Amino acid sequence: MPGSNYGSIFKITTFGESHGEALGVVIDGVPAGFELSLDLIQAEMDRRKPGQSDATTPRKEGDKIKCLSGYFQGKTTGTPLTLVLFNENTKSKDYGDIVDKFRPGHGDWTYFSKYNGHRDWRGGGRSSGRETAARTAAGAVAKQLLSSMNIDIHAYTKAAGGIKCETYDRDEIEKNPMRAPDPIAADKMMVKLKELIKDHNSMGGVVECRINNLPAGLGEPVFNKLDAELAKAIMSLGTVKGFEIGSGFACAELTGKEQNDERDKNGFLTNNAGGIIAGISTGQEVVFRAAIKPTPSISQKQKTIDKELNETDIVTIGRHDPCICPRIVPVIEAMAAIVIMDLILLQKEMSL
Amino acid sequence: MPGSNYGSIFKITTFGESHGEALGVVIDGVPAGFELSLDLIQAEMDRRKPGQSDATTPRKEGDKIKCLSGYFQGKTTGTPLTLVLFNENTKSKDYGDIVDKFRPGHGDWTYFSKYNGHRDWRGGGRSSGRETAARTAAGAVAKQLLSSMNIDIHAYTKAAGGIKCETYDRDEIEKNPMRAPDPIAADKMMVKLKELIKDHNSMGGVVECRINNLPAGLGEPVFNKLDAELAKAIMSLGTVKGFEIGSGFACAELTGKEQNDERDKNGFLTNNAGGIIAGISTGQEVVFRAAIKPTPSISQKQKTIDKELNETDIVTIGRHDPCICPRIVPVIEAMAAIVIMDLILLQKEMSL
Amino acid sequence: MPGSNYGSIFKITTFGESHGEALGVVIDGVPAGFELSLDLIQAEMDRRKPGQSDATTPRKEGDKIKCLSGYFQGKTTGTPLTLVLFNENTKSKDYGDIVDKFRPGHGDWTYFSKYNGHRDWRGGGRSSGRETAARTAAGAVAKQLLSSMNIDIHAYTKAAGGIKCETYDRDEIEKNPMRAPDPIAADKMMVKLKELIKDHNSMGGVVECRINNLPAGLGEPVFNKLDAELAKAIMSLGTVKGFEIGSGFACAELTGKEQNDERDKNGFLTNNAGGIIAGISTGQEVVFRAAIKPTPSISQKQKTIDKELNETDIVTIGRHDPCICPRIVPVIEAMAAIVIMDLILLQKEMSL
Amino acid sequence: MPGSNYGSIFKITTFGESHGEALGVVIDGVPAGFELSLDLIQAEMDRRKPGQSDATTPRKEGDKIKCLSGYFQGKTTGTPLTLVLFNENTKSKDYGDIVDKFRPGHGDWTYFSKYNGHRDWRGGGRSSGRETAARTAAGAVAKQLLSSMNIDIHAYTKAAGGIKCETYDRDEIEKNPMRAPDPIAADKMMVKLKELIKDHNSMGGVVECRINNLPAGLGEPVFNKLDAELAKAIMSLGTVKGFEIGSGFACAELTGKEQNDERDKNGFLTNNAGGIIAGISTGQEVVFRAAIKPTPSISQKQKTIDKELNETDIVTIGRHDPCICPRIVPVIEAMAAIVIMDLILLQKEMSL
Repeated sequence: MPGSNYGSIFKITTFGESHGEALGVVIDGVPAGFELSLDLIQAEMDRRKPGQSDATTPRKEGDKIKCLSGYFQGKTTGTPLTLVLFNENTKSKDYGDIVDKFRPGHGDWTYFSKYNGHRDWRGGGRSSGRETAARTAAGAVAKQLLSSMNIDIHAYTKAAGGIKCETYDRDEIEKNPMRAPDPIAADKMMVKLKELIKDHNSMGGVVECRINNLPAGLGEPVFNKLDAELAKAIMSLGTVKGFEIGSGFACAELTGKEQNDERDKNGFLTNNAGGIIAGISTGQEVVFRAAIKPTPSISQKQKTIDKELNETDIVTIGRHDPCICPRIVPVIEAMAAIVIMDLILLQKEMSL
Repeated sequence: MPGSNYGSIFKITTFGESHGEALGVVIDGVPAGFELSLDLIQAEMDRRKPGQSDATTPRKEGDKIKCLSGYFQGKTTGTPLTLVLFNENTKSKDYGDIVDKFRPGHGDWTYFSKYNGHRDWRGGGRSSGRETAARTAAGAVAKQLLSSMNIDIHAYTKAAGGIKCETYDRDEIEKNPMRAPDPIAADKMMVKLKELIKDHNSMGGVVECRINNLPAGLGEPVFNKLDAELAKAIMSLGTVKGFEIGSGFACAELTGKEQNDERDKNGFLTNNAGGIIAGISTGQEVVFRAAIKPTPSISQKQKTIDKELNETDIVTIGRHDPCICPRIVPVIEAMAAIVIMDLILLQKEMSL
Repeated sequence: MPGSNYGSIFKITTFGESHGEALGVVIDGVPAGFELSLDLIQAEMDRRKPGQSDATTPRKEGDKIKCLSGYFQGKTTGTPLTLVLFNENTKSKDYGDIVDKFRPGHGDWTYFSKYNGHRDWRGGGRSSGRETAARTAAGAVAKQLLSSMNIDIHAYTKAAGGIKCETYDRDEIEKNPMRAPDPIAADKMMVKLKELIKDHNSMGGVVECRINNLPAGLGEPVFNKLDAELAKAIMSLGTVKGFEIGSGFACAELTGKEQNDERDKNGFLTNNAGGIIAGISTGQEVVFRAAIKPTPSISQKQKTIDKELNETDIVTIGRHDPCICPRIVPVIEAMAAIVIMDLILLQKEMSL
Repeated sequence: MPGSNYGSIFKITTFGESHGEALGVVIDGVPAGFELSLDLIQAEMDRRKPGQSDATTPRKEGDKIKCLSGYFQGKTTGTPLTLVLFNENTKSKDYGDIVDKFRPGHGDWTYFSKYNGHRDWRGGGRSSGRETAARTAAGAVAKQLLSSMNIDIHAYTKAAGGIKCETYDRDEIEKNPMRAPDPIAADKMMVKLKELIKDHNSMGGVVECRINNLPAGLGEPVFNKLDAELAKAIMSLGTVKGFEIGSGFACAELTGKEQNDERDKNGFLTNNAGGIIAGISTGQEVVFRAAIKPTPSISQKQKTIDKELNETDIVTIGRHDPCICPRIVPVIEAMAAIVIMDLILLQKEMSL
């Protein structure tokens, strides 16, 4: 059962349900004496929170982070750092059909199966995307630590609704509601999105993430390899159906001669490896992509069953993100930061 | 550093280098009193071993498994089960360039970086694909345990060298050297393969794996989800550059209406989820795919550097698998079996 | 660094400093659907809290437990259960000497050494005995789960200030401020205690714990044995300097004939093993003892050094427990309950 | 079930039964490039092996260590280091009563209970003291690593058969069969021992261990404290019934004024803490003691039951150690070394 921990040295434990009292994270293993900015953590929370544009749900969540432990006089103490988001206005909602019926594409059925019929169905409980708020907070700590080592992580929408970015301008990413590095593609995505909103439908996409200035040597063979840990961390997001690194699935059609990254004294000539070989960082840019499924919460009638296994149908009430890409961008950065931070600390103990 | 363990209840620890004394695995957590067949383990070792056909390297490895502990009177004892492969004829080889130069596409450079310049370069040491022999042995134990619960796992080459299987006949898989379920595609793959062998080149592919009769409820949110664990286990194979489940990367171009699996009293109407929602098994068939990179060991001259970081070039000596797909098939089954076995045991403790 | 987790299936993570915002615990692995009483948890918090009698510090701590997650409609959901104690009135205290000087017998120096000079010195920060409040909350959950299986755990003061209990009456334990099963010894202990209070001194003791109705077969050889886990859990309390089971240190003077527990069809004839052989429960009563050191916080002048390593002396301000035995009794029960609960869940997965 | 791992960075996994094919250990996390001496490992194996004197069993075990992986050109590679002892002449023994009856004081009954009636009863299987050979090998690696950092660990028999050492001369320890630092006490112990041998009986004792040159700051609050980890590691030896540190159980009769270690600029004035406060090393000598139970294998008739739970009696055949103290000395050093090595590596990652 116990799957709410990640990491071995930079070790996070998350908790909380969508409409419960609070969500949060305990981070054990934060180095002592680090000048941590709570404002920078809040800034990441704000990047993830709903209601930022047409591309995201208009629901309002305050998402104000509070630090309960491990922080004193503006610095970390080396003891567990606890960050909590208290939920507001979670009382007396009309949850409608969700109590007794299983929404297609949602974790309602699987949570019901796993936990012997017991689950907090309010807002999806722990299977809600809101669970990623706690990950974002933990990732914001990791990002600050990595930033102090000059390691940079950024993600963006590479494709959505069948529209692919053709250009890459990092400065554009945070300027458009899709968080796409190609402003023209971003506009097209928004047009598509508005059509789908009208149709009570949603769309998927691809998010790409790049990690720069990573030293060679990170990753723990043979199971806790850098790519394996990134894959686990990213695939642990409910919305992700695929993960690839470097040339990824395209490598299936390449020859060895094409895939191999040759090298001269100035470095590697190509980066089909995506910065990782044999599960260990090469010192190149790490590049990976995640397949983001279309939001399952759509206000169209769909066939399903109820708790008594009778046939029925359901219309998901309320407005949800018609495309999850822009809001999952900071979460993917957060997960990558958590993975990298843990492997950096693990690598430190390797020599006497 | 310590990345040679996988699993929390069915817990494996592998060891060994390609040309060292032995490779092996210790499995802690095997239920006591199980009638384990060492012959069935050997059969899986034989499926993985080299020299089976033109599609695989003609190197001969005996790969005879030996059980050192945890087994008494034909049954498991519940104490650590140790399986070992002793390497034969590993003495006095000419290793040539590999000692001082880093082969493109191989872990030579990353191991060198990680372990402060110390590594066993003989045959690639621990970064060799031969490391997967130990995983195969552990997986063969898991497969027998799962088989006693009627859970079935099988993998096959879905595509290779740009040729995709168009049909699926399970009985064909083990009949052709590519382990493809479409005999016509298999023939085309072999034609392509022979061209590449002549050209001292290699080709990649896609391996698909199906798991049947899995109960609903397996997987441990929010980090140790079934898909996250499968992704980690599969991506921990050096040859894999991508992982996807169900609709996978194709979901990026679908709408929510298309992706969602509706349901009636007879079950789900589609399986875009690939048998996993919110990280927990739905009770449907689990289907995932892995992108297999072309073998990096090619006998063509490639640019690289040596230990003193001088520019040089290298030709990898010896014959290697021109396409790793057929031999990685049993390894992917093994990793899937290990993941599932661990999650089944974890699920057992959930109710009082 | 990361030592704030305990357990593998019933897995607890504690956080919090003595005078920080809050202390708490996240429990991952609580079985779903258990009717958990928050009142019973509060009752255990009240047994541990200060100000109960002359034997404990007169400081007032509200110690009201709040549940943040994993609990819905009076039942556990199987997701992480979070229990928090918010600290009250922790602002603007005069901390005096504690900021710059290291108190003898306290963790001030070792925390300073470990965390590179960074620590939250308010009330001892994380090294405070108040940290055990979070353990007590987690233990209260474990105790309720064990109680539903009829497993009973109780501890008591066996000796204190050189006075040993001569009789054992379980009903007496909670009736006297020393939590001793011998009311006459308890009276003598209180007399001794009052003398020491006058003298600004403190006294140590021995706490004994008994676990009944434990099935045979619990404990995970060869490292995570039942006695090894109990020893770790109990020795992880800052106040404990020794741990023994069954005949304990007395076995050093016994012969094999005397120590061995013979057996007939009605059961074991003696219990020198303390209910554990080869690290696994025998089915007998488990009996262990912990050596409790005298409270280090005494209002007498003692030699020490300051942060600049200059010689100085210090008088600990404020009133503290003159004997920690009575308040550590519920904490020892809590730790035993957490250990047992984890091993019971681990044992469940042993057979197919 | 899976309890055969210890450590988080210097991570050991042991396997093997007393009369099976082999016993061994896989150590994951050995720093790369360390010049490891296999001879020094063998020397520790020889200190532990039986047949050294009257004080130990005259059984002959070759106990020749063999290294299977992680070692190349005289140095460690950073990959798993595997050390194995192959058992010799383990075939066709007469095991007599042990097959069907449970020996008092042995793990026969508890293993039978835990593993659903399945166990390797040959020589006690995994519950045999021979299991500690694998620990000794792992500890011998840790000791060499610690030695390179000038950290010194040594243990000795402090008391046995009711006779206590009155003097301490380190040079005497390895000169007498009891491994006692007081040669006169050692002689008396041997006299007592010979009497007990004649009487087919055995005796217990106390082993003390000292660790020198340990830096301040080791140990991971609040659960993986230095004393808690030592307690777990030592109590995981089947022969140990108690563990204490510094003043230990004697602290129960001390006052705070007596127990507290004051300090001036030259260091601590006393060491009642045993070198550990709040679970973290102080920089002083670490001193702990273990209560060693008398060997349960005695050739006297004892009451027990058989597998069908019928009353019977049993005489343990063969000669065993009449006092386990001298042979457990190197094992206790080994466990201490393993604990320290892991905590040193964990401490390394604490600052950025």
